[in-house]
Amino acid sequence: MNAIILSIGDELTLGQTIDTNSAWLSQQLAAVGCDILAHATLPDHQKLIEQAIQEAAGRCDFLIITGGIGPTEDDLTRQALASVMGVDLEMNEKWLHRLQAFFRARSREMPESNKIQAMIPRGATMIENTNGTAAGIHAFLPHSPGEPASAGGSKTNCQIFITPGVPKEMKAMFTLDILPHIQSTTSGAVILSRTLHTFGLGESWIAEKLGPLMHRTRNPSVGTTVSNGIVSLRINSRFDSRQLAQQKLDETLTACRAALGDLIFGEESQTMQEVVGHSLAPSRLTVTTAESCTGGLLAKMLTDTPGSSAYFKTGFITYSNEAKHELLGVPMELIAEHGAVSEPVVRAMAQAARQRAHADLSLAISGIAGPTGGTPQKPVGTVCIALACKTDHAPKPNARTFNFPGDREMIRDRSAKMALTILRFHLLNKPLPF
Amino acid sequence: MNAIILSIGDELTLGQTIDTNSAWLSQQLAAVGCDILAHATLPDHQKLIEQAIQEAAGRCDFLIITGGIGPTEDDLTRQALASVMGVDLEMNEKWLHRLQAFFRARSREMPESNKIQAMIPRGATMIENTNGTAAGIHAFLPHSPGEPASAGGSKTNCQIFITPGVPKEMKAMFTLDILPHIQSTTSGAVILSRTLHTFGLGESWIAEKLGPLMHRTRNPSVGTTVSNGIVSLRINSRFDSRQLAQQKLDETLTACRAALGDLIFGEESQTMQEVVGHSLAPSRLTVTTAESCTGGLLAKMLTDTPGSSAYFKTGFITYSNEAKHELLGVPMELIAEHGAVSEPVVRAMAQAARQRAHADLSLAISGIAGPTGGTPQKPVGTVCIALACKTDHAPKPNARTFNFPGDREMIRDRSAKMALTILRFHLLNKPLPF
Repeated sequence: MNAIILSIGDELTLGQTIDTNSAWLSQQLAAVGCDILAHATLPDHQKLIEQAIQEAAGRCDFLIITGGIGPTEDDLTRQALASVMGVDLEMNEKWLHRLQAFFRARSREMPESNKIQAMIPRGATMIENTNGTAAGIHAFLPHSPGEPASAGGSKTNCQIFITPGVPKEMKAMFTLDILPHIQSTTSGAVILSRTLHTFGLGESWIAEKLGPLMHRTRNPSVGTTVSNGIVSLRINSRFDSRQLAQQKLDETLTACRAALGDLIFGEESQTMQEVVGHSLAPSRLTVTTAESCTGGLLAKMLTDTPGSSAYFKTGFITYSNEAKHELLGVPMELIAEHGAVSEPVVRAMAQAARQRAHADLSLAISGIAGPTGGTPQKPVGTVCIALACKTDHAPKPNARTFNFPGDREMIRDRSAKMALTILRFHLLNKPLPF
Repeated sequence: MNAIILSIGDELTLGQTIDTNSAWLSQQLAAVGCDILAHATLPDHQKLIEQAIQEAAGRCDFLIITGGIGPTEDDLTRQALASVMGVDLEMNEKWLHRLQAFFRARSREMPESNKIQAMIPRGATMIENTNGTAAGIHAFLPHSPGEPASAGGSKTNCQIFITPGVPKEMKAMFTLDILPHIQSTTSGAVILSRTLHTFGLGESWIAEKLGPLMHRTRNPSVGTTVSNGIVSLRINSRFDSRQLAQQKLDETLTACRAALGDLIFGEESQTMQEVVGHSLAPSRLTVTTAESCTGGLLAKMLTDTPGSSAYFKTGFITYSNEAKHELLGVPMELIAEHGAVSEPVVRAMAQAARQRAHADLSLAISGIAGPTGGTPQKPVGTVCIALACKTDHAPKPNARTFNFPGDREMIRDRSAKMALTILRFHLLNKPLPF
């Protein structure tokens, strides 16, 4: 079974509102095994809406339309459907009474314009709205124009559902009414999905490691997306039974984990700072930060997570050389000799911060976030990161130099995430895999 | 002139990612007088992409396609365009060299799979990507299949632009390359837009102050949007001549500024931290921060702006009571008496931080970001902010207590923005207007 989602409204095509309904509906439909052929967004323009309904009805089993059924003149979705169906709009007396009661209960007179919200194309069915005044509409259209529509049987018909654009009203209507309709029609195919997150290596490197797992025709399928330096794998398992879909999903998850190991830091909505926090909290270890180019971003990320006060108490932002010297006692000669962006300096920052904050662990970052300040030896994007720990076996804290691409914001973001990654591998007691 | 926007990616049609590109592009296109006929979102499925390109090219002047040009097998947008154009993909040597240099600069070998990112349909033009590895594509397709495409002249041709789906890369490519192409083709009615930003008072309060300026039928129109606590006014001036559109726009801008005064902190892409930085830099004043609940966010925001080292040198993150005492010398008795979230404590934090950092100004924040830690007297969202300055006329720094709504992330964000607002009004030598 497959579906198309249409979102109607000038505010969407003018870019004044971001459409979140389509994504939500897609998740719901995918979960019951429904393929999404397309989303489309159209302005409040009756002819364009009619064309889109006609075209979509020709090639999908379910057409979900949100928006354009308000009480104002620019709401034209119901008129467009009636026109495509070749019928008139007629008053639904049941909903008209509900509308009148709705206004009576608020001691207001119902504006004449609201009456349109009780009108639906002849032959269509009204869908109740538990959260607002616009009734939804359920109708059938033949896949080929000209043929007669008949209720039921998706072979020849497209089932059309119209809901308000207001997310709260749409969601309630979909869950209470539309989803049961769809489930009673669909056979049993199920899509189960999972997402795994990695950081530190590029998308193409991840794709090479995954190899045949990413083949286009594989089921479960494995795809990658990148967002703010985080490469995520999306695994979709599509089978006739939930049990088989789950079993195959689990097998593919195991194979992805085997291929990428600890590069995977979390799954679904987990953030890197959350994962690091979860490993720090039970260990009763505390961590402090000494930041130059990131200017507080690393500490901000560490304290994003509720309960972070268990492991984070103190942070130092030493943006200038003088601050590095005065707050952390980094010798001015060391800075003069190696430069503020150097492994010796971040080592000294990390060590001093750890001691002064009485912390078990310490992360220090110094780098050139740009856009200016780069040199041929140390171009913009050069960032040194050190980790100091109480039980250092080595005489000196570990330090590494990275070269991050992008602009100031990206370089600062990647620096903080890399510092968290270094801490995560330290807590795993493993070397960085890159 | 009109346009259609296609967004490509399974993550979009599966509802795992919300498409924000289409809204952004629509705003940009509307601003140059381009009507949006539709947005459509398609899965990574070559046949479906081909159909959509063919269909869209038949009825619009500009077709903007985002996504599906990554290095992996599920990226099929370039292949789909080549197929519709009836040509092969060919290697763009210039971009291949750029790709190779990109990987060399990072001392990594270029994976073989990345080569596809330098391939474009024969007859198309490469668009540079200043933020990533995927080159964009610019091509022409005739409105009716079968007719020959010829560069220029929108009467018979649709201009197609393909950009990466990564918003940052897409935006840079659109602004630098695609928009100038479109502007050189469009003519006629002009829409000029401006955006003004306010912080500190709600949308309905702003709407009341603006009164008739916000009437639906007014031209230029004034609308409000809210994003992360910032209430922005968008003014659209649509007239036949650029001169008239500009004159009317200027008049409306003046009226908005008269109504809202210094509540307006900036315009267009200006951020609050940028504006504060711009007033700090010429004054040669320095500022330091002492943060508890915001955990470094305020310092991070102050250092977002390039050149911030001129006024920001040092910051203190004192998340625990002990840190407030040890780093800043806040008496433990003061904390015991008033609580860590209190005006006396933030005053002490601000004063000590200013002195220890040898700064002219100092901002201190202590609050309850939640989700736990609230009490009936000090519920979640209670935040105290103090500003200390060298030339304090008053014996003690100013402090204020706020109550911010929302979750942890919102409370931290609003706290940092309010601290910046307090600093901004201090630099204006005016009292807070709320």
